[in-house]
Amino acid sequence: MNREPVMTTDLLDRVRAFVHTELMDKASYFDALPEQPTIESVRLHEAGLANWWIPARYGGRGVSLEDGVDIVSELAYGDAGFAFGSFLPILGTTMLQLYGEESLAGPLLRKLARDGGVLGILGSEEEAGSELGRTATVFARSGDDLVVTGDKYFSTNSDAAEALLVLARSADDDGDFAVIAVPRDTPGVEIVKRWDVIGVRGSATYQVRLRGCVVPAGNRLRGNGLRNLEIGLNASRILIAATAIGIARRIRDLSMEYAAGKRVKGVPLTDNAVFAGKLGQIEMLIDVMRNQCRAAAAEFDRLMAAPDPAAVMYRAGTLRSALAAKMYCGQAGWQVATIGSEMFGGLGYTHDHPIGKLVRDMRYVGIVEGGDDVIRDLLYTRYVVPAGKRR
Amino acid sequence: MNREPVMTTDLLDRVRAFVHTELMDKASYFDALPEQPTIESVRLHEAGLANWWIPARYGGRGVSLEDGVDIVSELAYGDAGFAFGSFLPILGTTMLQLYGEESLAGPLLRKLARDGGVLGILGSEEEAGSELGRTATVFARSGDDLVVTGDKYFSTNSDAAEALLVLARSADDDGDFAVIAVPRDTPGVEIVKRWDVIGVRGSATYQVRLRGCVVPAGNRLRGNGLRNLEIGLNASRILIAATAIGIARRIRDLSMEYAAGKRVKGVPLTDNAVFAGKLGQIEMLIDVMRNQCRAAAAEFDRLMAAPDPAAVMYRAGTLRSALAAKMYCGQAGWQVATIGSEMFGGLGYTHDHPIGKLVRDMRYVGIVEGGDDVIRDLLYTRYVVPAGKRR
Amino acid sequence: MNREPVMTTDLLDRVRAFVHTELMDKASYFDALPEQPTIESVRLHEAGLANWWIPARYGGRGVSLEDGVDIVSELAYGDAGFAFGSFLPILGTTMLQLYGEESLAGPLLRKLARDGGVLGILGSEEEAGSELGRTATVFARSGDDLVVTGDKYFSTNSDAAEALLVLARSADDDGDFAVIAVPRDTPGVEIVKRWDVIGVRGSATYQVRLRGCVVPAGNRLRGNGLRNLEIGLNASRILIAATAIGIARRIRDLSMEYAAGKRVKGVPLTDNAVFAGKLGQIEMLIDVMRNQCRAAAAEFDRLMAAPDPAAVMYRAGTLRSALAAKMYCGQAGWQVATIGSEMFGGLGYTHDHPIGKLVRDMRYVGIVEGGDDVIRDLLYTRYVVPAGKRR
Amino acid sequence: MNREPVMTTDLLDRVRAFVHTELMDKASYFDALPEQPTIESVRLHEAGLANWWIPARYGGRGVSLEDGVDIVSELAYGDAGFAFGSFLPILGTTMLQLYGEESLAGPLLRKLARDGGVLGILGSEEEAGSELGRTATVFARSGDDLVVTGDKYFSTNSDAAEALLVLARSADDDGDFAVIAVPRDTPGVEIVKRWDVIGVRGSATYQVRLRGCVVPAGNRLRGNGLRNLEIGLNASRILIAATAIGIARRIRDLSMEYAAGKRVKGVPLTDNAVFAGKLGQIEMLIDVMRNQCRAAAAEFDRLMAAPDPAAVMYRAGTLRSALAAKMYCGQAGWQVATIGSEMFGGLGYTHDHPIGKLVRDMRYVGIVEGGDDVIRDLLYTRYVVPAGKRR
Repeated sequence: MNREPVMTTDLLDRVRAFVHTELMDKASYFDALPEQPTIESVRLHEAGLANWWIPARYGGRGVSLEDGVDIVSELAYGDAGFAFGSFLPILGTTMLQLYGEESLAGPLLRKLARDGGVLGILGSEEEAGSELGRTATVFARSGDDLVVTGDKYFSTNSDAAEALLVLARSADDDGDFAVIAVPRDTPGVEIVKRWDVIGVRGSATYQVRLRGCVVPAGNRLRGNGLRNLEIGLNASRILIAATAIGIARRIRDLSMEYAAGKRVKGVPLTDNAVFAGKLGQIEMLIDVMRNQCRAAAAEFDRLMAAPDPAAVMYRAGTLRSALAAKMYCGQAGWQVATIGSEMFGGLGYTHDHPIGKLVRDMRYVGIVEGGDDVIRDLLYTRYVVPAGKRR
Repeated sequence: MNREPVMTTDLLDRVRAFVHTELMDKASYFDALPEQPTIESVRLHEAGLANWWIPARYGGRGVSLEDGVDIVSELAYGDAGFAFGSFLPILGTTMLQLYGEESLAGPLLRKLARDGGVLGILGSEEEAGSELGRTATVFARSGDDLVVTGDKYFSTNSDAAEALLVLARSADDDGDFAVIAVPRDTPGVEIVKRWDVIGVRGSATYQVRLRGCVVPAGNRLRGNGLRNLEIGLNASRILIAATAIGIARRIRDLSMEYAAGKRVKGVPLTDNAVFAGKLGQIEMLIDVMRNQCRAAAAEFDRLMAAPDPAAVMYRAGTLRSALAAKMYCGQAGWQVATIGSEMFGGLGYTHDHPIGKLVRDMRYVGIVEGGDDVIRDLLYTRYVVPAGKRR
Repeated sequence: MNREPVMTTDLLDRVRAFVHTELMDKASYFDALPEQPTIESVRLHEAGLANWWIPARYGGRGVSLEDGVDIVSELAYGDAGFAFGSFLPILGTTMLQLYGEESLAGPLLRKLARDGGVLGILGSEEEAGSELGRTATVFARSGDDLVVTGDKYFSTNSDAAEALLVLARSADDDGDFAVIAVPRDTPGVEIVKRWDVIGVRGSATYQVRLRGCVVPAGNRLRGNGLRNLEIGLNASRILIAATAIGIARRIRDLSMEYAAGKRVKGVPLTDNAVFAGKLGQIEMLIDVMRNQCRAAAAEFDRLMAAPDPAAVMYRAGTLRSALAAKMYCGQAGWQVATIGSEMFGGLGYTHDHPIGKLVRDMRYVGIVEGGDDVIRDLLYTRYVVPAGKRR
Repeated sequence: MNREPVMTTDLLDRVRAFVHTELMDKASYFDALPEQPTIESVRLHEAGLANWWIPARYGGRGVSLEDGVDIVSELAYGDAGFAFGSFLPILGTTMLQLYGEESLAGPLLRKLARDGGVLGILGSEEEAGSELGRTATVFARSGDDLVVTGDKYFSTNSDAAEALLVLARSADDDGDFAVIAVPRDTPGVEIVKRWDVIGVRGSATYQVRLRGCVVPAGNRLRGNGLRNLEIGLNASRILIAATAIGIARRIRDLSMEYAAGKRVKGVPLTDNAVFAGKLGQIEMLIDVMRNQCRAAAAEFDRLMAAPDPAAVMYRAGTLRSALAAKMYCGQAGWQVATIGSEMFGGLGYTHDHPIGKLVRDMRYVGIVEGGDDVIRDLLYTRYVVPAGKRR
């Protein structure tokens, strides 16, 4: 019952050292749209930290998702965009690990563990937006192969990815959705453009076109693609939420730095009661965000540790705690960002101060992988309407 | 690492059965200021549930604080005032258990475990408000005895208590504060009045006068009284926070009941997107409140399980997680109460519907044992200003 | 262009004197459900203030709605329930004045001006809720008479009213709604019960049954009843909004009284920066509420001063500014009430302090005559969807 | 009493035509830091709209501040930065007109009316921040001249200004503050840098150094410089607030455009109840912002129309209504911006959509010319503490 809630301090220290050396105070560099993979991604791998969650049986470090929350918080303290690009492959590796044929998943996961690198997830489309059930990308059987065609809207890491995990609908059966692994170098895969996003610019997100991409039938993951994706999203949503922790911690620390050198009404700003109240509120929000993320991650870890995690997770689908973490951290993070954006006076309204970037980065948490309306609807439909699931 | 986060389902089921039988739908009864101890308190003891947290070595059930969160959530689902009166003795038992002489603590704790019953905590004063350092109640040494005199403002359970744990300042040394156990029947103890509170009326809170109350010197707890109290408050603040979970769950379930029988714009209210959004938001808040309370309680349980919990807890003092739980649940609970208070139209503005009572009950969470300004100040001073304590 | 925004100071001074003498500090009296008309209503009439808005041509004082905002703010400063009961007849007199036959409206308005007294408006029903288009009360033609039958849910002032203005649907034509004046003593009018409301208890609200109530056909107001009601609601919604100003001003002044006698951290609470910040926020909200109410009232006054106000107002229907005033003051008022409910510590959670009553009273503003969801929907449908009406 | 609240429609139509032709859909152009004065500023003057508020006696158009609210709302609908740069000279012209010697004010105001052009206001300093009483820039008497030396932090329009109005403290008397007009081409005036701001980039803000700038003594405005500035800020704060109206209206209209082409759950987004609720809330906020700005502006206009406006305004100092307008529109505007920033899904997080710019622009309203903490403190000190000023 009583467990120590911290991972090997050693690993977290290495993450912090990496952040300190490679990520801090590079706002304008990351804002200037670096090529992917960035040199920092390479360094992350050299530090033995890339794709830290891949299980030991694939040669990975096998860090639990609960500990991953702290790692992401540290990375996002340095740069949220870099953090996002670094952990997002977990969305794909989770699906592969649970629902991919060993012949597909094994080599891919081993490669990601050994060489670093990323996966791209091709879910969203222009028309469908968040409604994945309206996916228009199709796949068709052709002998032992599948042929995939469609247009995908927002997809992070795709250009540099080993493989793209594409959500598509069967050309023959409107209700049959599949997640299909398409190697990046498959003929017919075309990067249409890189999106010029307003924040998290330490990552790269693309619009992608697929035209008659042929892959072996074994590249389809087992089960319904919508469900596969829900399950992968459990992991990535929790880590997106954890991004907000890191950004909020950075805002807190920048506030304390600023206050140390500032006097208001004749006393140091650190002695000002209104300032103290704001920082007290931020500290509370940070603690609650962390505990929600850790609790959601612990639930995910428990399901993954079950004797048959693929079946258990497939039954569970999208987890209440993961939805709550994503939505809560989006809201609490925005509260912190709002306080922060007013904290530094006129200076905070210039590019001479990092707060503007932190506010833009924070905005992402509430938007990516389901805005609040979408998450509220999922929570209501899955966990409030069925009275037996309420708790 | 992976633990199952629920206690023996059996115990929680018994709590739920008790709530169902004894507490539900008695709003007007509890609102009418029942005498203490209420018949429901007696029944709670008969059900073997009174003072559920007292350690087995004192004959108690020894339920962890983490599991206590769920118990309190269930009790508060029935009646928050009753829940409050039932768990509040933990503030005293925690102090007794850690800092009381065995000759004092042993018999008292064993009695509370065996016979039920309550303790009163006499901290707040009219002038001092939340600033316990301004306590004006004094104690003086007189041979082997201590003599305690003062006036205490808000004290729950005092009239029916076995003993009163009184915060007092030394008559000889302004900086020496003590918590002193004063048996309820000590000459000089006078209940001035019962406060006519606006909510949580299933509990009873008193103004108490102490005039020359003589107790043995061994009735003083070890250490500084302000610190003693801080440590007891760790437990009670977490359970106060848990009260908000129960009230919020009740509001959620009442909303679903109401929506089941209501049509808006030609469709059932349960199919209305705005309603769904509100319930989705509430469900998120409930999940986050629960996880914060459980995390804070787990931290408390870990410290209590240390080889020398008295010393460990004394060093820790007021816990960040407990402060955050109290403040967060006060804020999140008020958000739920606000949504709830608008949910039931005109009917919700009458005593024919329980929502008015739930809103009044919820208000307490943000007020008792430190309003938000006090908590923010504590978080800032203890956990933000010392850079090494930030996390 | 530049006008002085205050009415004859003299009149407002008389209102203030009345409030001071008759309404202040009677929370428990009003909470105890006084009979209607209360002695205070009689005194309001004796002071020449009852139904202050009735035009001079009917023997009234003819105070503009814009000035009425300040009168209501003053009355609500004393008691919001009393204020509500006092101004609510304006909902009926507005409809009568614009759409009633002179033979109906003249005598009634003259009586209300001369003798004081009230009107009841019977709009809401149990099933229909805020959706007046679902009204189930019916009227049928019978020779020169109309026969009205139905059940009305919430209706303030009905028991003591001169007449009840009943919204009903034609028995012959589903789309034909009418507002019909039914004298209170008409056979078939039955007061089912007085609602036991949680606030604004200085007014009295009833459930009313109408069984075969026969009135002359000329008692029907001209035009569609839904539209008639919308127009009357313009006036009453603005004054409901103004109620929030008075309650907020009271909370501000109580806070300053409290702070004058309270010290925190060694300095008077009035010098505390966090306290100052709260009061500064409240002062801002009060100013904005007042200006919104006055602007909405000025628009109403302008339309009423048009050559053909009945036609002009009928075309305008529900006014954006009135909807915005009601919704805004409900939200801003609740923000003030929330701050206030945390301001007075434990004392503020008892009936020894008026804040609890003020919070309950404030809650009403956001609920009565359309909750926020209803108002938002009206604003959207009437003023956002038609692009030409945006401004 | 009943006045028509709109100015000559003709003028507002010309503003709208200008906005449509010159400002719309130039986000990336304005973001790219155009030189000042921009070609758009020149066009504004050609359209006869530059410095629209300068009184007729100086050859200006003499538009009231109340009507100026609508003009600024229209300009900000096109580009908030351009609007800001265009109206900000009012801060200086108001001071000049009321407190400048005719020999100073007359020629300057006539030039601004005839030729367009701007004034710069040099108030803020790095150390002092918002606390103008800590101003370190000094002036000293030297024969018939004044010599001004200091460093000013944020000053909009300074590079292109006819004259700089500099807040300075007497070298001889710590309590004597003055506003002194320093022609832009005075030796010793140096533009240190243009700030790289995160929003309102259609305006230009500078850091300015003054080294021994010599001007005639008559260039000092009459009265205390802190008071002079307060009075000028009344006008500019109201128009800054009005900026938020324009940005919010733009967000509303972009939302409706977006919704027209988007389907969710099988129906057009315009029929979605959650969407409707958001737009209804925005519409309410727009109406309240406008009415607050107009009411504050009307108060300003009334004082300016008094027989001795300089004395009347000097006594009034900073106006409650202007403070409330600035703070309210900052908060309400941010609420709209927050809703807007979540409205457009992933696309809204890219530079392909203008919402990101609108959010950045909106942020300025709450920061410039006094953040909320400063404004709350002013409201408290000036209008709550003096009981006689409460209303």
